[in-house]
Amino acid sequence: MPNSLLIDVGVAKTEKYASRESGDTVELVERPSGGFSVVMIDGQGSGKAAKTLSLLLSSKAVALVKEGVRDSVVARATHDYLFAFRHGQVSATLDLLSIDLKTRTIVITRNAETPMILGSGGTITVIDSDSAPIGRYRWTKPTVTQLPITAGIDIMLCTDGITHSGRRAGLHPFDFEAFGKSQFGLGLMAQDLADALLRSVIERDQGRPGDDMAVIALSLREGEANSALRRMQMQVFAP
Amino acid sequence: MPNSLLIDVGVAKTEKYASRESGDTVELVERPSGGFSVVMIDGQGSGKAAKTLSLLLSSKAVALVKEGVRDSVVARATHDYLFAFRHGQVSATLDLLSIDLKTRTIVITRNAETPMILGSGGTITVIDSDSAPIGRYRWTKPTVTQLPITAGIDIMLCTDGITHSGRRAGLHPFDFEAFGKSQFGLGLMAQDLADALLRSVIERDQGRPGDDMAVIALSLREGEANSALRRMQMQVFAP
Repeated sequence: MPNSLLIDVGVAKTEKYASRESGDTVELVERPSGGFSVVMIDGQGSGKAAKTLSLLLSSKAVALVKEGVRDSVVARATHDYLFAFRHGQVSATLDLLSIDLKTRTIVITRNAETPMILGSGGTITVIDSDSAPIGRYRWTKPTVTQLPITAGIDIMLCTDGITHSGRRAGLHPFDFEAFGKSQFGLGLMAQDLADALLRSVIERDQGRPGDDMAVIALSLREGEANSALRRMQMQVFAP
Repeated sequence: MPNSLLIDVGVAKTEKYASRESGDTVELVERPSGGFSVVMIDGQGSGKAAKTLSLLLSSKAVALVKEGVRDSVVARATHDYLFAFRHGQVSATLDLLSIDLKTRTIVITRNAETPMILGSGGTITVIDSDSAPIGRYRWTKPTVTQLPITAGIDIMLCTDGITHSGRRAGLHPFDFEAFGKSQFGLGLMAQDLADALLRSVIERDQGRPGDDMAVIALSLREGEANSALRRMQMQVFAP
């Protein structure tokens, strides 16, 4: 039986210390043309208003993805919706990570201000975002990166709670490249990568996250055999 | 710190043997009013047509859930949509399992023909569905079951590939009660429960599933401490 590709996605999240709700929402859905998309929204601010905003925008983006709308248009439409109804007064970041099995590409569509870590063939690259958040200016566009689907790729995306970690303690900015170099290529599951990144930055905030935080990890590996089994799981603690 | 509640969801899926696509679609999304919903659609037939149908219906149901529409209306609206556009000629089953943190209830909304396994306080109950699939008759309604959120509850839902397993080999119907009695209450994670059920029924089909199969497991446990960490992961093998 030929080797297959294992698509492994892990998400880890936490909220600002002493806040009851996170303004970061992450959803993982199936694409109608084949494959999966992860939608990550960081709503401006924190607490209930930010949570409501990020749920509203994720609702719009998820509905569009599931209708088969192309990713670059999902980002523009979600921006236009926010801009039309909030008149440029509210912003949010949007990350859309798609594994498109039709085109055999990974498509990363971003309106964000955090870097992306890309590991491929032993090389770690930290790609700064040169896009702007959605909601603020009339013609905001996303940046789009497209990569062929290949075993051995690791990708990590995060919200700005990660980049801002350690500020209170006056630490140097978080070193994404060092993180990638120490963690990629060890055969870790995507969930372990996401957990490890979140753990590191929570430590930089002395166990009390200074902001909402969300991390997405995607790993593509050669599967040992073609397996038709699919798994999805979630663990959440509620009061 | 007071004990918290761990909401643990696991999903396992496979497709009919030698089929490239599964007509069973499962999506897990966040509810705008607090909590999570799992949507499971089994589109009539198998292969590409069934997959397209189940993605179309899951797109509709997910969009409605994420807009805050109440579950019983999500089921009716998804039915009405299918009935309006396919004129009663195509059917599908719909399961909606919600953990509603606003009302502190589990809400199970079903248009299905498979039983549900409920484990609570050491008692296993197999609840047969008395609803009909969506899409066939004008005024189809779901059945709705509501339970208070309590640690110690296990719930499993599945598509009819599970109930039909073993037919080819002339086996007795799958014994859901025996499964619950042997697997619930051991502290297994939801993913382990879902995997175990899928493994048992694939064995009954001699390793070659006679139909698309999907299983959802929900376990509510007392968490050891209040943790703000949330995790979500997915593993899929692609050709």
